[in-house]
Amino acid sequence: MKVLVANLGSTSFKYRLFDMAQEQLVARGGVERIGAAQARTYCQVGERHWETIGPVPDHAAALEQCLHQLLHPEVAVLCSIHDLAGVGFKAVHAQGLTGVHRVTPAVLEAMEAYHAVAPAHNPIYVRAMRLLAERFPELPLVAAFETDFHRTIPPAQRLYAVPYEWAERFGIQRWGFHGASHRYVATRTAALLGRDRLRIISCHLGGSSSICAIEDGQSRACSLGMSPQSGLPHNNRVGDFDVFALPALLRETGKSLEELLDDLACRSGLLGLSGLSNDLRDLEQAAQAGHERARLALDVFVAAIRHYLGAYLCLLNGADVIVFTGGIGENSASLRQAVCQNLDWFSISLDEERNRTARGEAPIHAAHSRVQIWILPTNEELIVARQTRDLLLRQAASGGPPCS
Amino acid sequence: MKVLVANLGSTSFKYRLFDMAQEQLVARGGVERIGAAQARTYCQVGERHWETIGPVPDHAAALEQCLHQLLHPEVAVLCSIHDLAGVGFKAVHAQGLTGVHRVTPAVLEAMEAYHAVAPAHNPIYVRAMRLLAERFPELPLVAAFETDFHRTIPPAQRLYAVPYEWAERFGIQRWGFHGASHRYVATRTAALLGRDRLRIISCHLGGSSSICAIEDGQSRACSLGMSPQSGLPHNNRVGDFDVFALPALLRETGKSLEELLDDLACRSGLLGLSGLSNDLRDLEQAAQAGHERARLALDVFVAAIRHYLGAYLCLLNGADVIVFTGGIGENSASLRQAVCQNLDWFSISLDEERNRTARGEAPIHAAHSRVQIWILPTNEELIVARQTRDLLLRQAASGGPPCS
Repeated sequence: MKVLVANLGSTSFKYRLFDMAQEQLVARGGVERIGAAQARTYCQVGERHWETIGPVPDHAAALEQCLHQLLHPEVAVLCSIHDLAGVGFKAVHAQGLTGVHRVTPAVLEAMEAYHAVAPAHNPIYVRAMRLLAERFPELPLVAAFETDFHRTIPPAQRLYAVPYEWAERFGIQRWGFHGASHRYVATRTAALLGRDRLRIISCHLGGSSSICAIEDGQSRACSLGMSPQSGLPHNNRVGDFDVFALPALLRETGKSLEELLDDLACRSGLLGLSGLSNDLRDLEQAAQAGHERARLALDVFVAAIRHYLGAYLCLLNGADVIVFTGGIGENSASLRQAVCQNLDWFSISLDEERNRTARGEAPIHAAHSRVQIWILPTNEELIVARQTRDLLLRQAASGGPPCS
Repeated sequence: MKVLVANLGSTSFKYRLFDMAQEQLVARGGVERIGAAQARTYCQVGERHWETIGPVPDHAAALEQCLHQLLHPEVAVLCSIHDLAGVGFKAVHAQGLTGVHRVTPAVLEAMEAYHAVAPAHNPIYVRAMRLLAERFPELPLVAAFETDFHRTIPPAQRLYAVPYEWAERFGIQRWGFHGASHRYVATRTAALLGRDRLRIISCHLGGSSSICAIEDGQSRACSLGMSPQSGLPHNNRVGDFDVFALPALLRETGKSLEELLDDLACRSGLLGLSGLSNDLRDLEQAAQAGHERARLALDVFVAAIRHYLGAYLCLLNGADVIVFTGGIGENSASLRQAVCQNLDWFSISLDEERNRTARGEAPIHAAHSRVQIWILPTNEELIVARQTRDLLLRQAASGGPPCS
């Protein structure tokens, strides 16, 4: 069974194609600059690359182009479109819905209801999924929600101290996100260490960042709460903030609530603090060169990571492993070092040399560290491919309809 | 020099009168049910009590009544009103202002500007202070802001990841509150342990709750952020919450932003979760009797306390002392026990017997605990009295005007 996992940006479409018999990555590719006359459609199979330039008006056309490339006799990783069992999406948030679902009008409506809760994600996904459902009515589309892994978070961590009915009736709670990544970390760490009973603090640090407390394979808490804007500061999203700053901001800026939420979702985080860039690499370089607000943005980011690290050490009564993953977690040695310094009271300590030189899956803790520290490249797409496969197999087994 | 420290509720006025020569409490008292025909004015000096019943229309009349009682020949702790050097207030929040100030029209305006940021506190204080300033134009009124102790919080902890101008121009930052209480804890703990270089995690738990990380006598972080509604859940105030829940709530409840903020400030916290009471004692009793949502409210409260406890252990790279103070912190053995359980990985452990039986200032940690744990009755009024005295002395020394 072949499953394509799609990753959507506002003007990009990226995918990985898996053969789920051996859970093997068959191909990866995508389209850049959707909507432009000179969009680039690319594809990589093993060491071989293909690329075409030309207009790709929308996300449905993008999938069309990508399938065209995958079906091309030179590439030929798909024999026909029927060779593709389904397309899986790392869907973010929907009202009153988590888990893994066939994309139906009801699912799209539930996602649409949370456009303002997940403004950087839902509108793009809903629009693209609609187009794809129209253009490929025979192709099963599967939404694997990012909140799914966090269903095991107990009420004490899950609930805000708001009127109880808000949680019960309106789903106002800490949902947690980045579920595919944290689930991958949980599974992969257990495999690497050869045991399931583990307390893991999973630090997914990237354009969007979160920390998850994992106990025996299950999520116990996540820094992301009701929305993907909460928790740690993100590239341009705010992270934790105080609702009661809004009255002061409404009064002082003259902006509307919608405008302020847009600032918090698009012009905050590392970008807002630094005034320079939403990319950590730029900030590290600028800070090195003496840019004060770049340094400040890094300091706030590190402080927030350490905040949740400490909170989750306490929640889990210690930890066996701290894992760094995501674009920043995997690649920034200096960020990892800043997070792990001054933890000698806990007997947690990095091996500085290992931390600097490690690539791929690698332990980076000092020999005497009480907690193992690992770098682990995440593989969210594999998790979504598995979830898509499992749903399709369940539905096939039950002779079920295409709508879940 | 005699200083009266006032504590204002919407229909109550409480005070403590200090003789600052020896920092001695001379009298305490107040008025209950201001506005009612049968208001109760009471006063206690040592073991002696006085009480009168009668109409007290407002907070200015309340002070008048109290002074009347203190001047009465039978009580006579004041010879004349000129015997009172000033009245100090534990003021909460003001736009662009912290520190200790004479109450002037400018200070009142700055407080008024934050009515919506501190809705449970500022309107009551501003109204009462205005009345008092009118009725007692000769009496120095001093506002000691709760944010003052937290000026030492470094930028990495202080700043939200919002557009930098919001902090710079509009004061959008983690201000921290309960400054008088945390300052008292810092000072008193250092005196009790005979050393200043201490890492203290101060847990002020009461109707309103916060945790403060203190290093060498200085605040390094506080769970209260921009407003007194943030951080830990409070009796009826929300604690930490996700701004992006608002779009969902606006849509689902049909309420306005103002109404939702009012729910978050008045019908949330322990009250909102439990649906039963805003008083921890009621909740403990109900939970004992099997009330599920009372248990839930307690669990959420404890989880939030442990969250900040862990975060601050990490921030301070350990701790020397954990202090419990405030109405709940001083009196609820079961709450303290719930907070301190499952910390053996940190070698932090309570002595259960001591915890159950301790009264007043007392250590309650087990002999082998790596961190000392203390109960410490707070004395915010003494701190405010000192701040008031110091300001008045500074102004007298400089021959300064009554307005700072």
